[in-house]
Amino acid sequence: MIKKPTLLLDQNKCKQNIELMFLKAKKHHVSFRPHFKTHQSLQIGQWFKDFGVNKITVSSLEMAEYFSSQWDDITVAFPVNILEVETINQLTEKIALNVLVESVETTLFLKKHSKNKLGVFLKIDVGYNRTGLPFSATSIIDDILEIISTSKTLDFKGFLAHAGQTYNSRTKEEIINIHNTSRRIMLDLKANYINDFPNLIISLGDTPSCSIADDFSGIDEMRPGNFVFYDLTQNQIGSNTINQIAVAMACPIVSIHEKRNEIVVYGGGVHFSKDSLEDKTYGIIYGKVVEQTNDGWGKPIPGMYIKSLSQEHGIISVPKAQIKNYAIGDILIVLPIHSCMTADSMKQYKNNMEIIDRL
Amino acid sequence: MIKKPTLLLDQNKCKQNIELMFLKAKKHHVSFRPHFKTHQSLQIGQWFKDFGVNKITVSSLEMAEYFSSQWDDITVAFPVNILEVETINQLTEKIALNVLVESVETTLFLKKHSKNKLGVFLKIDVGYNRTGLPFSATSIIDDILEIISTSKTLDFKGFLAHAGQTYNSRTKEEIINIHNTSRRIMLDLKANYINDFPNLIISLGDTPSCSIADDFSGIDEMRPGNFVFYDLTQNQIGSNTINQIAVAMACPIVSIHEKRNEIVVYGGGVHFSKDSLEDKTYGIIYGKVVEQTNDGWGKPIPGMYIKSLSQEHGIISVPKAQIKNYAIGDILIVLPIHSCMTADSMKQYKNNMEIIDRL
Repeated sequence: MIKKPTLLLDQNKCKQNIELMFLKAKKHHVSFRPHFKTHQSLQIGQWFKDFGVNKITVSSLEMAEYFSSQWDDITVAFPVNILEVETINQLTEKIALNVLVESVETTLFLKKHSKNKLGVFLKIDVGYNRTGLPFSATSIIDDILEIISTSKTLDFKGFLAHAGQTYNSRTKEEIINIHNTSRRIMLDLKANYINDFPNLIISLGDTPSCSIADDFSGIDEMRPGNFVFYDLTQNQIGSNTINQIAVAMACPIVSIHEKRNEIVVYGGGVHFSKDSLEDKTYGIIYGKVVEQTNDGWGKPIPGMYIKSLSQEHGIISVPKAQIKNYAIGDILIVLPIHSCMTADSMKQYKNNMEIIDRL
Repeated sequence: MIKKPTLLLDQNKCKQNIELMFLKAKKHHVSFRPHFKTHQSLQIGQWFKDFGVNKITVSSLEMAEYFSSQWDDITVAFPVNILEVETINQLTEKIALNVLVESVETTLFLKKHSKNKLGVFLKIDVGYNRTGLPFSATSIIDDILEIISTSKTLDFKGFLAHAGQTYNSRTKEEIINIHNTSRRIMLDLKANYINDFPNLIISLGDTPSCSIADDFSGIDEMRPGNFVFYDLTQNQIGSNTINQIAVAMACPIVSIHEKRNEIVVYGGGVHFSKDSLEDKTYGIIYGKVVEQTNDGWGKPIPGMYIKSLSQEHGIISVPKAQIKNYAIGDILIVLPIHSCMTADSMKQYKNNMEIIDRL
């Protein structure tokens, strides 16, 4: 019985999300290297293994260490933190590890300090302007490739990009445009360097592009992560239907304010994270309340959403006509805005994650 | 040596914050029941004990359980979650526990199911409109007090308020106005009920009021929490100077983008939380970079702030003239927007908290 804020995982929805993306990659002849930062769970990792997935992406060396007990081919999709080179050397003793570089300095450091074979991707900025080298920075790219080529340990893997600007899109057309631009940039790079490095690959990543786009020709690898759970943000972008969202938070009602049409739940910023989205109808929201069904949850209840979050509690807006249906001690089920952050927040509450099996 | 995002705690600043608030409570003859949700640490709790503090506030029963190993008088400043009544009954076997009620239903439930003596505060809404009974809801207040009076276990402690709207203030005058309004509301309640309940107390809480206000006459107890660390939000409100902020995040530089005047650090939403504030000069920011000193950190460096946060990394805006001073692998020290959320995020990284002792 649920007594505290609890992350619910709908196993069937999750496995279906995995299957759909697996089949999409297969259909497009793109290698599938899912990002595990969203779920951070060995158990869910096993569901990927069941489809024959054998390589993954993570976003920190800490996560790479965690998953290295069961996975032996891991890309850390984060600009190398050179201070952790010892961890890199420990990992490369037992698994195939790839890291991302985007500067001559870091590459030189790795050449000098890496002890075992280490895969290296060049991170390319395809317009997100967060990390990565501009594709036009050919002289830096050449310098980095020269350093790698003369290294005994570093192994050039290819070019990697994350078109994170798709998360700010609000239409499928926008996402497809971004995807096509990224693809063109990366294919140009591939064309320029494939003669010197015939094994180089092109790796693209974001969940919106991987969910929506349908042209992956020339792309060698995809690394979506969020799709395993999806969430309201991805739903707003158009990556998924509401039905595909595989996680939800169960929150006990602790107070009901009829006059204000508000319910207070135990479940706050430390559980959901403080990510929000701007809903067309309700304005800024922090989650949507869904119907409860015998085997999990159903559709969002119109007009019921989290309007604000404190550290431990959330304030739910409730339509006047419905507030009488609820009592203190009832559980509300809430779809999260950003499942990666919510799942990460709930990590420390490992015992408070429940897997719903509808079979 | 710091290698990953690490929460630094300046012991001297922290102890000074504790001492100042302790002395302020003493000067105003107000009982001091600090809120421990900010630090959530038995070790820091000990620094309060050193001043003779013997009772505390927390925001969940989980925290009450954690602190009950060393504290025997705890108020859980959160509307009771009736689903956790077993935890309440376990705690009241060994410590003096107070909880908050704001409805007849919850009070009846506690009357029926509480097994040991349990202190009960009525939560009063003094204008934050989040939780609590309106002070004008006298018939509900009377009903609740009637239930408590006829209970063998429930013990009416008094009226408790949290004027959380002070967090949205931007001037000291606003905060003092809010504080005075809360005080008046609570003193009216006290006057109305003191004859029937001669031991009732009035408890007020928020850090801005406790830091800034200077009239606590008639108030019996204060419960500030954030002051133990303070942060940029409290600094913007006027609760503290920049020098009083006792925590900061040390983040390794992983990439430098000179053309964009940006530095990428390892340190993102999972470390800082995604709380932001609107800075007059820079717009929305997620933290400010400070100077490093031999014994900790100094003033903010003009123009250096976190402009955006992803899950694992932050993008720091850096003035053109200064970006050449930094190298990949250097550590930047960043003051947090909301120390409660940052400290909570870093809890799971317990090993990544460093206490700086400047003596």
